[in-house]
Amino acid sequence: MEDPKVRQIADVVVRAMRRERMGLALARRLIEQGEEMAESMQVPMVLTVVDDGGNVVALHRMDDSLLASIAISHAKAYTAAALRLSTAEAAQAVLPGQPLYGLQETHPGKFCLFGGGEPIMVDGRCIGGLGVSGGTVEQDMAVAAYAAAFAKQL
Amino acid sequence: MEDPKVRQIADVVVRAMRRERMGLALARRLIEQGEEMAESMQVPMVLTVVDDGGNVVALHRMDDSLLASIAISHAKAYTAAALRLSTAEAAQAVLPGQPLYGLQETHPGKFCLFGGGEPIMVDGRCIGGLGVSGGTVEQDMAVAAYAAAFAKQL
Amino acid sequence: MEDPKVRQIADVVVRAMRRERMGLALARRLIEQGEEMAESMQVPMVLTVVDDGGNVVALHRMDDSLLASIAISHAKAYTAAALRLSTAEAAQAVLPGQPLYGLQETHPGKFCLFGGGEPIMVDGRCIGGLGVSGGTVEQDMAVAAYAAAFAKQL
Amino acid sequence: MEDPKVRQIADVVVRAMRRERMGLALARRLIEQGEEMAESMQVPMVLTVVDDGGNVVALHRMDDSLLASIAISHAKAYTAAALRLSTAEAAQAVLPGQPLYGLQETHPGKFCLFGGGEPIMVDGRCIGGLGVSGGTVEQDMAVAAYAAAFAKQL
Repeated sequence: MEDPKVRQIADVVVRAMRRERMGLALARRLIEQGEEMAESMQVPMVLTVVDDGGNVVALHRMDDSLLASIAISHAKAYTAAALRLSTAEAAQAVLPGQPLYGLQETHPGKFCLFGGGEPIMVDGRCIGGLGVSGGTVEQDMAVAAYAAAFAKQL
Repeated sequence: MEDPKVRQIADVVVRAMRRERMGLALARRLIEQGEEMAESMQVPMVLTVVDDGGNVVALHRMDDSLLASIAISHAKAYTAAALRLSTAEAAQAVLPGQPLYGLQETHPGKFCLFGGGEPIMVDGRCIGGLGVSGGTVEQDMAVAAYAAAFAKQL
Repeated sequence: MEDPKVRQIADVVVRAMRRERMGLALARRLIEQGEEMAESMQVPMVLTVVDDGGNVVALHRMDDSLLASIAISHAKAYTAAALRLSTAEAAQAVLPGQPLYGLQETHPGKFCLFGGGEPIMVDGRCIGGLGVSGGTVEQDMAVAAYAAAFAKQL
Repeated sequence: MEDPKVRQIADVVVRAMRRERMGLALARRLIEQGEEMAESMQVPMVLTVVDDGGNVVALHRMDDSLLASIAISHAKAYTAAALRLSTAEAAQAVLPGQPLYGLQETHPGKFCLFGGGEPIMVDGRCIGGLGVSGGTVEQDMAVAAYAAAFAKQL
């Protein structure tokens, strides 16, 4: 017969492991969190979540958001997941004369190196990235940070 | 002073005009419709909706769905919107000896010509496309048709 | 019997709806406007108009214009529509140290970030973009601004 | 003083030389010819003209024509100019077992090998190509042939 303690431990472990991967439920939750803030700011945005392999899990384009924001939000999400760094932080390092100048050339068409991308961290591990585009860089950064912070409560 | 009848008519027209464009609310509704069916079939899928210009409005990747399905569902949605035809119908027309043999060569990286993509028709007008990938072609087709049919009630 | 007021309202609405989308008649009118100015400057140019989804509506290559200008005018039109900004304004924001440094990397082969692209605005809404290439950047900017201004009278 | 006969000869030569190259005036004339027929058939189409270098001279997208037709009309024009053959004729030669099977692979993304593309011939020389897309292959072929025939009167 199965020891009830074994079951209990297994449940905890399974729950913890699930948290280790970006899934659709979490991706949507993060995006909806961001959408709420974007709506309150009355700035239509595109929000994209990728997993730790850099592959899209969910993308929502709010009505009337910029056409360019589709690709930009995707690229920000990818960049944040790939570097495990917010794109705003990475932006400093790629300026001429800085240590990572030219970094974007290593990922043609995939990287976006200005604010609005956040790595999604759970228990100190990066499980994906979130990218936001549609407003000013400051607005994008605020929405991305707000949405990404939700994952920290997990 | 504004005639109340004018306002009433304007409201009707505005609603009708909104129906003429694919928006995030409708895109999500179509995708959720499809997800429900995919869940009941226990086949994880990726569902993508594009507008009539072929640009993504929403994409959801269900947990454990195929990596390849991200690009495939996108391409099916694009193809259905661009041709205003289900990809299953288009698939027949591109066989050797058929009228559109070689069609896919005209849109490298953008077209997918097997079942699972449906144009989204409202009042006889194509307002976008839906693409589904993850199961067999028959499963993808069933989910895409079921989800796309929702738009017909609008 | 149809109320004549209803017909009147319908006409107004239909005109308004047409103004909401970029069509071939308007695209040609904008291009011809630009061609006239280019001719008077004796600088052959390529002029391209895209709709709000970034898809081409019309392109004219004046005789003896630069081969490179075909792709450049297209990219300028796309960029202006995608960012809802003139490419000259965008050009400032992508310089090293500016907020959108590296923006072009997010749209490989699609963006052109120097002057000569203008968003086409009608009633404060962006319905597409116009791109002009063939002369100096200043000449391209002058022709693009002159042609795009026509839409403002609509 | 200039001999009037010299002027006369020069004019004839200049006119003849102009005929040897595809220019914007002729491209527009061919496209308008095709548009007229498409309108009478009530089938919105995209019409593209390329010169003998395969580079676009003019493209018109009629309102409500298929999104896919932009790339298809372009590819048909390119193919007809590149092969100096109508795409309907070429289509026969690329079927499995035929002499040019696989031809399209040699021009990835550039060729379209079904009816609706016509070379533009003047005095037995190919000066470009015209591509038409939007209807059935038969409709596209009819419009392309009608428009291309105009060049034969030159």
